[in-house]
Amino acid sequence: MTELLPDERIDYLVHEDLKIIQSPSVFSFSLDAVLLSRFAWVPIQKGKIIDLCSGNGAVALLLSKRSKARITGVEIQERLYSMANRSVLLNNLDDQVNMDLADIKEAPAKYGHGTFDALTCNPPYFASVHEEDFNQNEHLAIARHEIHCSLEDVIRVSSQLVKQGGKVAMVHRPNRLMEILAFMRQYKLEPKKLQLIYPKAGSEANMLLIEGMKNGKPDLHILPPLTVYGENGEYTAELKRMFYGEHEQ
Amino acid sequence: MTELLPDERIDYLVHEDLKIIQSPSVFSFSLDAVLLSRFAWVPIQKGKIIDLCSGNGAVALLLSKRSKARITGVEIQERLYSMANRSVLLNNLDDQVNMDLADIKEAPAKYGHGTFDALTCNPPYFASVHEEDFNQNEHLAIARHEIHCSLEDVIRVSSQLVKQGGKVAMVHRPNRLMEILAFMRQYKLEPKKLQLIYPKAGSEANMLLIEGMKNGKPDLHILPPLTVYGENGEYTAELKRMFYGEHEQ
Repeated sequence: MTELLPDERIDYLVHEDLKIIQSPSVFSFSLDAVLLSRFAWVPIQKGKIIDLCSGNGAVALLLSKRSKARITGVEIQERLYSMANRSVLLNNLDDQVNMDLADIKEAPAKYGHGTFDALTCNPPYFASVHEEDFNQNEHLAIARHEIHCSLEDVIRVSSQLVKQGGKVAMVHRPNRLMEILAFMRQYKLEPKKLQLIYPKAGSEANMLLIEGMKNGKPDLHILPPLTVYGENGEYTAELKRMFYGEHEQ
Repeated sequence: MTELLPDERIDYLVHEDLKIIQSPSVFSFSLDAVLLSRFAWVPIQKGKIIDLCSGNGAVALLLSKRSKARITGVEIQERLYSMANRSVLLNNLDDQVNMDLADIKEAPAKYGHGTFDALTCNPPYFASVHEEDFNQNEHLAIARHEIHCSLEDVIRVSSQLVKQGGKVAMVHRPNRLMEILAFMRQYKLEPKKLQLIYPKAGSEANMLLIEGMKNGKPDLHILPPLTVYGENGEYTAELKRMFYGEHEQ
């Protein structure tokens, strides 16, 4: 029997056959995590994957459905780490997925440089935080704002953790694209795949997925756009297929 | 009566009420020029616009339908310059549009630094050229390959030509995006608008439109995607609207 705190609930993802412990008051995974877990390249049969800024472990758990590789999730907040850890046990994934309560900046020293085949990260999106927001909800503030790690930290550490030719996939906001690309270039992660997510037809992109290869050669592909909501306010057919339909490799 | 060479023809763009001299054997403008001429910011009532790598002048001519500003087109090939010049006269646009037979690298010395409000460029897309292709059709080779100007030349010169806060809009290929962004950053053109063009649903982008502002602040918007062809192989409704429908400002 999984122990739940008063503000927690278990969400069941039918298609993935995954149970994920959520808590709206400290952290809920969202579309970002689902899209990232499908966008990222993963080794299928064996290898090592690391997920940084893991939150409640949604990305790490979802990746376990696409790969038999060992998956490590790194999360700095004890409360979220606990949720992720209990979700791992709840899904009997403790042989494959290992959650770690740590600062990502310590990860290269801890796991070694050039250790992983693939890395995913859903980092905090916002560069700064108002003290007021921080005081109101520290958990959400840390997950959303660059309090414990900057974008540069994330990209530097990612580059250190993956092997030569290893892949680093990230979800972020379009208005950070220039910074992301500049840091990727600086830390030798050559962008190979970029996908833009649009909330609805005719709107500007509000999310991006990007994947780079450690010391890769320049060859950027811009994948077909994804539109989230249709005219009727429901998920588009494309999104429904992703959530409920055939699982793509 | 406009004089036409044997391989030339006049294309009439009904919606824009423009006649453009084309020649498949030396240069034909295409979708790229039409999209660029609609994507670029232009001063409406007055100011100065410059179009680099003008080819047969299609972009400069199309821009004259959106702006009353003075427009200068710069083209290095005498044959294309001649076509552009005759098209300007054919449309009675010689009060507004001035074609110049010149190397774009000479333009800053000729027109002065910080002269223009807006700049457009549909540069050669390919970095290198095989000697064989060059020998077979020098006109097309020069228009398509970076023989007389590199991507860096285009961006450096563009940055020199526009005012503080002036706009530089370019059409190019997605696989050059990383280079474009790196040069734009180097030459102080901050990317503000990016739009990806997809040949059809489910395909990777094969064209991009990007606009930067001289010494602008970072704030990139990724505009709604454009898809060119529908399932039936015809232009999508969106593209048809752009070509035949209401002209957007």
